[in-house]
Amino acid sequence: MRSDARAAIVDTARSANAVLRPVGVRDVVLEDVFWAPRLRINRETTLAAQHQMLEQTGRLENFRRLTGASNAPFAGIYFNDSDVYKWLEGAAWSLATDPDPALTALVDQTVALIAAAQRPDGYLNTYFALDRASERWTNPDLHELYCAGHLFQAAVAHHRVTGSTALLNVATRFADHICDRFGLVEDGKIPWTDGHPEVELGLAELSRETDDERYLEQARFFVEVRGTGVLGRPYGRWGLEYHQDHLPVREQSEIVGHAVRAVYLYAGVADLCLERDKPELRSALDRLWASMTERKLYVTGGIGARHDGESFGDDHELPSATAYAETCASIGAVMWAWRMLALTGEARYADLIERELYNGILSGLALDGTTYFYVNPLADEGEHRRQPWFGTACCPPNLARLLPSLPGYVVSTSDDGLWLHLYATGTVEATLPDGQSARLRVETSYPWDGDISIEVWATGEWTLTLRVPEWVGDGASLEVAGETWPDGLMPGSYVAIRRRWAAGTVVRLRLPMPVRRVSCHPRVTENAGRVALMRGPLVYCLEVVDNPGVDVRDIVLPAEAEIEAKHRPELLGGVTTLSFDGRAAPVDGAWDRTLYREDVEGAPASIEPVRVVAVPYYAWANRQPGPMRVWLATR
Amino acid sequence: MRSDARAAIVDTARSANAVLRPVGVRDVVLEDVFWAPRLRINRETTLAAQHQMLEQTGRLENFRRLTGASNAPFAGIYFNDSDVYKWLEGAAWSLATDPDPALTALVDQTVALIAAAQRPDGYLNTYFALDRASERWTNPDLHELYCAGHLFQAAVAHHRVTGSTALLNVATRFADHICDRFGLVEDGKIPWTDGHPEVELGLAELSRETDDERYLEQARFFVEVRGTGVLGRPYGRWGLEYHQDHLPVREQSEIVGHAVRAVYLYAGVADLCLERDKPELRSALDRLWASMTERKLYVTGGIGARHDGESFGDDHELPSATAYAETCASIGAVMWAWRMLALTGEARYADLIERELYNGILSGLALDGTTYFYVNPLADEGEHRRQPWFGTACCPPNLARLLPSLPGYVVSTSDDGLWLHLYATGTVEATLPDGQSARLRVETSYPWDGDISIEVWATGEWTLTLRVPEWVGDGASLEVAGETWPDGLMPGSYVAIRRRWAAGTVVRLRLPMPVRRVSCHPRVTENAGRVALMRGPLVYCLEVVDNPGVDVRDIVLPAEAEIEAKHRPELLGGVTTLSFDGRAAPVDGAWDRTLYREDVEGAPASIEPVRVVAVPYYAWANRQPGPMRVWLATR
Repeated sequence: MRSDARAAIVDTARSANAVLRPVGVRDVVLEDVFWAPRLRINRETTLAAQHQMLEQTGRLENFRRLTGASNAPFAGIYFNDSDVYKWLEGAAWSLATDPDPALTALVDQTVALIAAAQRPDGYLNTYFALDRASERWTNPDLHELYCAGHLFQAAVAHHRVTGSTALLNVATRFADHICDRFGLVEDGKIPWTDGHPEVELGLAELSRETDDERYLEQARFFVEVRGTGVLGRPYGRWGLEYHQDHLPVREQSEIVGHAVRAVYLYAGVADLCLERDKPELRSALDRLWASMTERKLYVTGGIGARHDGESFGDDHELPSATAYAETCASIGAVMWAWRMLALTGEARYADLIERELYNGILSGLALDGTTYFYVNPLADEGEHRRQPWFGTACCPPNLARLLPSLPGYVVSTSDDGLWLHLYATGTVEATLPDGQSARLRVETSYPWDGDISIEVWATGEWTLTLRVPEWVGDGASLEVAGETWPDGLMPGSYVAIRRRWAAGTVVRLRLPMPVRRVSCHPRVTENAGRVALMRGPLVYCLEVVDNPGVDVRDIVLPAEAEIEAKHRPELLGGVTTLSFDGRAAPVDGAWDRTLYREDVEGAPASIEPVRVVAVPYYAWANRQPGPMRVWLATR
Repeated sequence: MRSDARAAIVDTARSANAVLRPVGVRDVVLEDVFWAPRLRINRETTLAAQHQMLEQTGRLENFRRLTGASNAPFAGIYFNDSDVYKWLEGAAWSLATDPDPALTALVDQTVALIAAAQRPDGYLNTYFALDRASERWTNPDLHELYCAGHLFQAAVAHHRVTGSTALLNVATRFADHICDRFGLVEDGKIPWTDGHPEVELGLAELSRETDDERYLEQARFFVEVRGTGVLGRPYGRWGLEYHQDHLPVREQSEIVGHAVRAVYLYAGVADLCLERDKPELRSALDRLWASMTERKLYVTGGIGARHDGESFGDDHELPSATAYAETCASIGAVMWAWRMLALTGEARYADLIERELYNGILSGLALDGTTYFYVNPLADEGEHRRQPWFGTACCPPNLARLLPSLPGYVVSTSDDGLWLHLYATGTVEATLPDGQSARLRVETSYPWDGDISIEVWATGEWTLTLRVPEWVGDGASLEVAGETWPDGLMPGSYVAIRRRWAAGTVVRLRLPMPVRRVSCHPRVTENAGRVALMRGPLVYCLEVVDNPGVDVRDIVLPAEAEIEAKHRPELLGGVTTLSFDGRAAPVDGAWDRTLYREDVEGAPASIEPVRVVAVPYYAWANRQPGPMRVWLATR
């Protein structure tokens, strides 16, 4: 059994093909203006509220049915166990940085309940139990392996954080059960993988945690059997592409189908590539990444253009109002990107992680941490509001596990030294290549300001590698121990500072955050002639509440407008707003009750000057409802 | 039993609230360049091919299971009977105008088979039979009443055309069964209506055909119980709005949910309003019609913006590439509009019928009559191609029944005389208010030319009412017996010519067909700055095959371009093309592998002059695949 008391989120410490090694959740203390308060709300409000929901909705009672403590009928849907596991994973990460006896007690109870519910043969799923026990492993679309994968992730987190094997033992017994049953037909095994990927990355991480190669081998099987047509799957309404089962992964190039399924799968494939040399899979990941980020990604990081099948659309199919952009899909994209970053050390993966965290993911959560978006559109008429829970409740606990694990995404180590990916005031402890400890003290008002000061408390010769985000403006600069860095800083790269460090050396990174007018590829028809406003990593939007007396749908951003950034600590928990002198071009009254008419040349009936205020996209729909827009007309 | 040997499509002859009365399918002989060849293909190719499909896919065998002539398992899906009924209805209408012994034999066989399959208690549905007989009427979402409604429509058509009661007797026995079982809970009956409307209009028409008021009363029940929440429906994935079950119909204002369900329902509601005074329902129909036509209608007449739920979107949600615009929904819109026209005599309903027929419906059918679109997008990259059949095969037989019934949509009578709605070369026979016969001989090259000559062979004083389409250009004129009509002709209206007619009087209606650049409401974001080309009732599109060497997605229609209309008899079965000197503005190479970048002012890298050719939208995808666009950039 491995012992990683520092609690890495993905333990690539000994992965054969990892460029980057983990620095655990416990090694990073966030004390910043942006994330630290959000982690506190998650700890103090969200996790407790979600546990109540797990109880109220029968998700925990479902486990009690199996222990004999309840006679209730099964409640909810067949993948409900996964929400319990995700909550448990989130609680574990939270305990890593913030011990809490009450939460520990809840976790212990829940772990004991899960362990008691496990069947004697290792199987564990509360839906396929009792009267439905005979239906186990008969339908690959019913998420049994998906739930198992979430159990494995929760068990690994729980073991890393607490040192207890109570849940890990449940996981390995279930994993053994799965390894015994799934494989080649000629070996008398079930030849399929799950309709919803997740078990692949769960098994890979379980293998890392237990040093049991068998689990990795099983993950390999699940990855490589996909798309080989070994079974006529009872897929019903949805087809093979929806399940990424239309081609072997190594032959896939276009990212298609259910967005969450896709990114969970490719995260698992990346795990496999971290551990083994799989050049064909590795190439496929590059093609699929390009497909996603070059043709199918919302400016917010949202993925999944279609409500129909919660799926990716065609190239450049990125409608704003009907965007699906599921919160879970953006979280899955981070999981995939993090593994790609570990594989390559390439900044574009960290850029995507940042885009997701500050926009497409964070919009999924209300400022008070109690309500959620499943779907994250980029335009709305005021009807889309966050909800306290969902029948399919994947997104809330996914947020509740991602947020407390965030410290684990801040920094990595490599053979050369330390890599800093995300910027936030706080402290990092890490072990250098020579075995010595290093401590970084970071000070910044990021994401509101791009000035970052890093005190380096370590000695010896090693490399501090800092991310220069893709969005950085002209004039980015770096100063090390008072000396200006001689080379230019290229946006979307890492800058490597190799030197013999003196304890207390100060590194100053200045990342200018001009307001950017971002255009979209011309094939995204509805964004033609429009821009999105960004500043630093943040995408902005217009909401009606900041722009009284004008319909935000009518607002035009003139080319000549100067856009003013102003920090407003009292607004939306503290945000920097953007404002400009715009125009309102209301819809001509000739369009009343008219959908089509012969083209009429000329300007709208009236154009009025108007002062326009934009707020960060993540903060929308926290006040009164009304139209919201990300993409603004420019004429 | 009524006797209407002239074969009206909807028999409003004695409807209390009808302004217009039917002229039967047999009363109109189409000999025009446009529809007559299509009706011939439907007769000679489509109906036969579809009958083969009904056989190959087990839809007929399903009936044989019930007669004991087959031991095959049930084939297909639970609503498969409806395809047999729709085919039968189409075959009946076809026989009305074109007797065909072979088709008659097929119809007779099929009717006999259906009659033999009927259960002793009158019930008839091949899915809920034998081993599934106990599941009858247990789930309102399984289309039992929907299939019944199609049986009723087929039986009425069969009776009107052939005079045989063989299928009508099956229908009335099943209708009696339904009337006995569905109604108020306090009467010990099942209180629901079907998840998929259709039975309402079927019962209404059956009532008209049999003079049995009970069927109309049952239709009223089904209309008025909807939305009253009398049952907790097992709707599963789809909700109440999808089924138009969220509000009582009389309280509905916004058209929502599954588009085919909606328009079938409102057609049935219109039937009820034709027969009875239902002011609240009548007002609701006006509101729902406005919702559909003023905010949720594609320029092609397509309805249903969303693949997800095959449903209407929000107001102004009309994406081109991902339009659903199901062929059946446009057909259903015609069914609804025809009943509204009978209720009101208002030209807007006939305008919609024309828009649907020449665009959104006809695009559902290949020129050779053997393949079909289910979905009719307004932009495509060349991947959307017509198919010979579908698992859910509603659209093919819906087309096969609409086309042969078209003669029934051409003309109506009223208390004043005759109303001509659609223009096509051919002959109309009708009975005037005074009981005398009238004959109209129409000559025109419509829709390629708007000059229409009508020889009137009748005497006496009565009114000939002619439609002036909404699209008509300046200079429309009317000449009656050589004299110019003194009043202006208003687009989107009817002009009433009341006079004492002499036999052989010639009426000349000249409807100029300038090419129109049609703009779309500014809230349809992706159409901003774009136009669709129309000429007469036809919407045009660009296909790659007519514009070699240029990507049609890059084409810009300049404001100053002159658009030339040219008839090309050799192309696509004979079409008028539109051509103009346009520009191609290819996507700047700076966008390669780039989805977002900072706004760059200025023109595209290159703009090339190009001669552009557009063809009627209905004819798209009949040649080589490639990008297609309806909405063209103008700058």
